[in-house]
Amino acid sequence: MKVIHIGILGLGTVGTGIARLLTENRRLITSRLGAVLHIKRAADLDIQRDRGVGFEKGVLTTDPLAVVNDPEIQIVLEMIGGEKIAKTLILKAIANGKHVVTANKALLAAHGNALFKAASDKGVSIAFEPSVGGCMPIIKTLRESLVGNQILSIKGILNGTCNYILSEITSKGASFEDALASAQANGFAEADPTLDVEGHDTAHKLSILAAIAYGMRINLADIYVEGISRITPLDIEFARQSGYHIKLLAITKRAGGSVEARVHPTMIPFSNPLSNVHGAMNAVTISGDAIGDMMLYGHGAGMMPTASAAISDVIDIARDILTGASPRVPLLSFQRQHIKKIPIRPIEELVTHYYIRFSAMDQPGVLAKIAGILGEYAISIMSVHQIEQKLNGAVPIFMLTHEAEEKKIRSALSRIASLDVITDTPMFIRIEEKNSEFSQP
Amino acid sequence: MKVIHIGILGLGTVGTGIARLLTENRRLITSRLGAVLHIKRAADLDIQRDRGVGFEKGVLTTDPLAVVNDPEIQIVLEMIGGEKIAKTLILKAIANGKHVVTANKALLAAHGNALFKAASDKGVSIAFEPSVGGCMPIIKTLRESLVGNQILSIKGILNGTCNYILSEITSKGASFEDALASAQANGFAEADPTLDVEGHDTAHKLSILAAIAYGMRINLADIYVEGISRITPLDIEFARQSGYHIKLLAITKRAGGSVEARVHPTMIPFSNPLSNVHGAMNAVTISGDAIGDMMLYGHGAGMMPTASAAISDVIDIARDILTGASPRVPLLSFQRQHIKKIPIRPIEELVTHYYIRFSAMDQPGVLAKIAGILGEYAISIMSVHQIEQKLNGAVPIFMLTHEAEEKKIRSALSRIASLDVITDTPMFIRIEEKNSEFSQP
Repeated sequence: MKVIHIGILGLGTVGTGIARLLTENRRLITSRLGAVLHIKRAADLDIQRDRGVGFEKGVLTTDPLAVVNDPEIQIVLEMIGGEKIAKTLILKAIANGKHVVTANKALLAAHGNALFKAASDKGVSIAFEPSVGGCMPIIKTLRESLVGNQILSIKGILNGTCNYILSEITSKGASFEDALASAQANGFAEADPTLDVEGHDTAHKLSILAAIAYGMRINLADIYVEGISRITPLDIEFARQSGYHIKLLAITKRAGGSVEARVHPTMIPFSNPLSNVHGAMNAVTISGDAIGDMMLYGHGAGMMPTASAAISDVIDIARDILTGASPRVPLLSFQRQHIKKIPIRPIEELVTHYYIRFSAMDQPGVLAKIAGILGEYAISIMSVHQIEQKLNGAVPIFMLTHEAEEKKIRSALSRIASLDVITDTPMFIRIEEKNSEFSQP
Repeated sequence: MKVIHIGILGLGTVGTGIARLLTENRRLITSRLGAVLHIKRAADLDIQRDRGVGFEKGVLTTDPLAVVNDPEIQIVLEMIGGEKIAKTLILKAIANGKHVVTANKALLAAHGNALFKAASDKGVSIAFEPSVGGCMPIIKTLRESLVGNQILSIKGILNGTCNYILSEITSKGASFEDALASAQANGFAEADPTLDVEGHDTAHKLSILAAIAYGMRINLADIYVEGISRITPLDIEFARQSGYHIKLLAITKRAGGSVEARVHPTMIPFSNPLSNVHGAMNAVTISGDAIGDMMLYGHGAGMMPTASAAISDVIDIARDILTGASPRVPLLSFQRQHIKKIPIRPIEELVTHYYIRFSAMDQPGVLAKIAGILGEYAISIMSVHQIEQKLNGAVPIFMLTHEAEEKKIRSALSRIASLDVITDTPMFIRIEEKNSEFSQP
């Protein structure tokens, strides 16, 4: 029986999950692969703690170089996270001719172009299924299953923390702060939740998906990012009454010679299955010219679901090694010479429907003033709702618009904000229209 | 640029879709694959009809042997359907050393073991992603993405015709007959709908999924199959009031040394995302020991979605050919020597919750008689509802049971049916319990 030696960098949650899965399901994996995956070395700063994995003697080390320099190791799993050490070690592993599996979306979003170039030059793989969507096979589906499709759009709930918080606000009417505290208490949010709630983690993932969908260079810098911290129970309740749930969506769409790529809270109609993804679950819909729409749905994080994705990458690479085919699928889905710099359209050019919440003094003529300014920008109002409930002496006004250009929405709202009857900065949320392919009978 | 020659057998809906997709997306596919997929020959009895595909001169033929015997063709797509000619041609193609892609679930369910053996012996692939779930990458997900998981269960809505009909009954209160007529008028059902509505098509697909999930030989004969033709609007309405939708489900579960594998109408709680799959859409949930639960959702049939799945198989094989890796993944997920004959547990041994509808004379004491017999079989009643509305002089009684063994349910119902107060054969539907992994917040 052939043996393939692997090394693990970092025994945090996911690294430990990988070691556990390889150990517990060793016989099963061997019966599928036809070879043994052997953990030769595993590095972590703390090798004293009992992780519940029966590592062989001599496997654990505090020296990551003992992993990336081991001549027998063919596949290195980078599960350290962060950008500095992880990048150095991955480049070292590549230079040593080793294949790499990583869950590090922040690193790929920031330095992926350089890393993939290094791997291509060396003829090794960088696999990254665990970096996006946990156990959902979104990378494999885009790169392999939809290989015959022009990808038209991808819309994803890719951050469990945000979805948990929005679900808490939706189901319990909790404030953002209380929902965040609940997420932290339940292990769905980090002590410092900024990366998640401000949308950056989702943007990292979107930058990777857009690259493999369209054959474009990874471009995090031009993705528009807006988090969920300004969403209130009032917004969610009004959305629900209008037939929408609010989700933090990663959206990318083909748009002529450019693409849209944006992350922001989005109102999604109930008929779109993404609106029914609750709690910490993740889901992603993909639209292709042949398939119409498809959805993947599953646990987007957590020890074992993410470990499962990492193992699938390891075994893909192991199969390449065993058959001498490596690397068999282009790392970023397209042959290298076909990967282009495709521009991301500025958010100001977006055309969509908007939800707007104004906070205004309770006096006659306010709506006329607001409507007048919107009219000047040719923004057409679909509906207006005003409730009697006062918040800090002001009344909220809810509005849904017809399609409008974001540039005009921003200009109009900026002028409206300066009216003396307006008591707070207007809040707006983009609306994703009903997805006809997923329509209900 | 390398060229891989392929041949198509059968230019019906899917065969035509494949030719169209390869033609329309030729440049895109080449930029991903790094080689040209060239349709060398395509065979159909009717080669006069204009299919809207610009075939090169000399490609079309009425002789399928011109495809399977062409020495340049490396991949043959069998899109004829049926069991006789298709089987002969596939075996001939294999004997000639060609890889095969097929959408023919009926053939694989009936003769898959022999076909896969022939392919293994010859060292070629039989790929079958288009045979189950249309564009959903269920085969690739099971064989590759979940390769590190013990598969615990699979539950699928795998027949668009049945789901369309059940959705019509649900949304419009139509009778089965009217809903079937609507499905036929809208192109979602064949003129002879038996294969679909009686559950056989779903069972074909389930036999394939169970084989690759557990490493078992394909075993269609032992799968329990029950169709949807006895479902009435009354059943669906009562289910809805109780928090369930009725779907035709393919279910397989690991059960000790055997497996469950069954196809029947199933009541699914609203909280399970399968219950919200409407119209002709397909979906499948997979439970694995590492991933928890995951769902795929998409168009389970139709020209272009199925063609997309076929193309993904062709390109997988083309990549194997280009890298000399063929075949790289075991055809049935497990190494050949690990594929066993795993018994399917008889339906009589099933233990689940049941919905039962009795049709009884409107007179006192009926319920006592029914309950008495159920009690004798230790079947515990969860709830009973009786409505005043009479149907053909009888009143319907709806009942939900606690967990019970199917053998006892059948014996009890058989005795109850013979009571003179019972006017029609009792109807029962199995209930699939709430899936906690997918629970709502």
